[in-house]
Amino acid sequence: MPNKKKEIRLSGSGGQGLVLAGIILAEAAVLYDGKNAVQTQSYGPEARGGASKSEVIISEEDIDYPKPENLDILLCLTQESYDEYHHDLKRGGVLIVDQDLVPDIFLRQHRTYRIPFTSIASDQVGKKFVANIVALGAIVAVTEVVSREAIVKAVMARVPKGTEQLNQRALDAGFDAADKAQAEEPTKEESPNGKNAGNHKT
Amino acid sequence: MPNKKKEIRLSGSGGQGLVLAGIILAEAAVLYDGKNAVQTQSYGPEARGGASKSEVIISEEDIDYPKPENLDILLCLTQESYDEYHHDLKRGGVLIVDQDLVPDIFLRQHRTYRIPFTSIASDQVGKKFVANIVALGAIVAVTEVVSREAIVKAVMARVPKGTEQLNQRALDAGFDAADKAQAEEPTKEESPNGKNAGNHKT
Repeated sequence: MPNKKKEIRLSGSGGQGLVLAGIILAEAAVLYDGKNAVQTQSYGPEARGGASKSEVIISEEDIDYPKPENLDILLCLTQESYDEYHHDLKRGGVLIVDQDLVPDIFLRQHRTYRIPFTSIASDQVGKKFVANIVALGAIVAVTEVVSREAIVKAVMARVPKGTEQLNQRALDAGFDAADKAQAEEPTKEESPNGKNAGNHKT
Repeated sequence: MPNKKKEIRLSGSGGQGLVLAGIILAEAAVLYDGKNAVQTQSYGPEARGGASKSEVIISEEDIDYPKPENLDILLCLTQESYDEYHHDLKRGGVLIVDQDLVPDIFLRQHRTYRIPFTSIASDQVGKKFVANIVALGAIVAVTEVVSREAIVKAVMARVPKGTEQLNQRALDAGFDAADKAQAEEPTKEESPNGKNAGNHKT
């Protein structure tokens, strides 16, 4: 995805590590891929109810207006966050959800990936709290919004000392899960004439 | 400082913990003081040169436009960040600098507090890397932009397990240093008729 501004929202609930994930994504873009980025947390009354969202805009050019309004990429780690935000994803945008935590989704209009981030973190990586890093790996693998090298460096620079190997395993698990999901092409972007709207390809 | 929107910029260099400090300040306002907040990192080419800035807008009302343009509060932990940003502080705004790291400042127009955050963190608290938390304590004590209770809770919720006592000592050291600085009134806000402009009161 070179040369264009990308608007990304990471959404879910407090405690899922989305603020940190947004910061890592922005720092990957800026410090290691040489792009510009703006990273924002907007907290309103819903934050006190446990909702969390973190937004990142990445661009090769200056970024004037930091409010994402037409998302290219949306991650949802709770059903509530999907219900609230899926309308903000632009036509043809990439929707990535936790398969177990977001059971009810529309398979229309978007490139949709359903990956069990939290189960992968618990079962494959061994720590549920790295689900945010598994999700980051999947986002990068699917969208190439930053390079894999950059996200690895940015994660290593931000996570607590002593957890580097754990987080490397989490990232790798996210890359693998996304590569597998893309090979299977479980859902298809709506074609320009609408023919494939809402269909599973498999 | 009730009932009004406050725009805050925390500036310095990468590694000084200002991104985390901005998040903690926003979460203090939202989760524990019942306000709204937007917290933004804007990364441009200067980030690759080591500069860091984190911005927070706190308000009791909805916040539409998240770009701070007329700062109420500016923290500078490097001379470079002071040189670049002090013009963005509004007349009568609060300037807080690390006394040792920002030697050259103008004592005009602003309420200025010079506190040796990094020395306090090293010498009194015992760990240089908590200078950001010492600075947060001082900001809250001087400006009351969030309550002391809220900032304590927000720091405790965000810092790594096992570092709670260290961070509590850092916050307390920040409160104390600011209380002392205010008692001494080392610099005076410019009066409306300009009489005291640029003067030390002591």
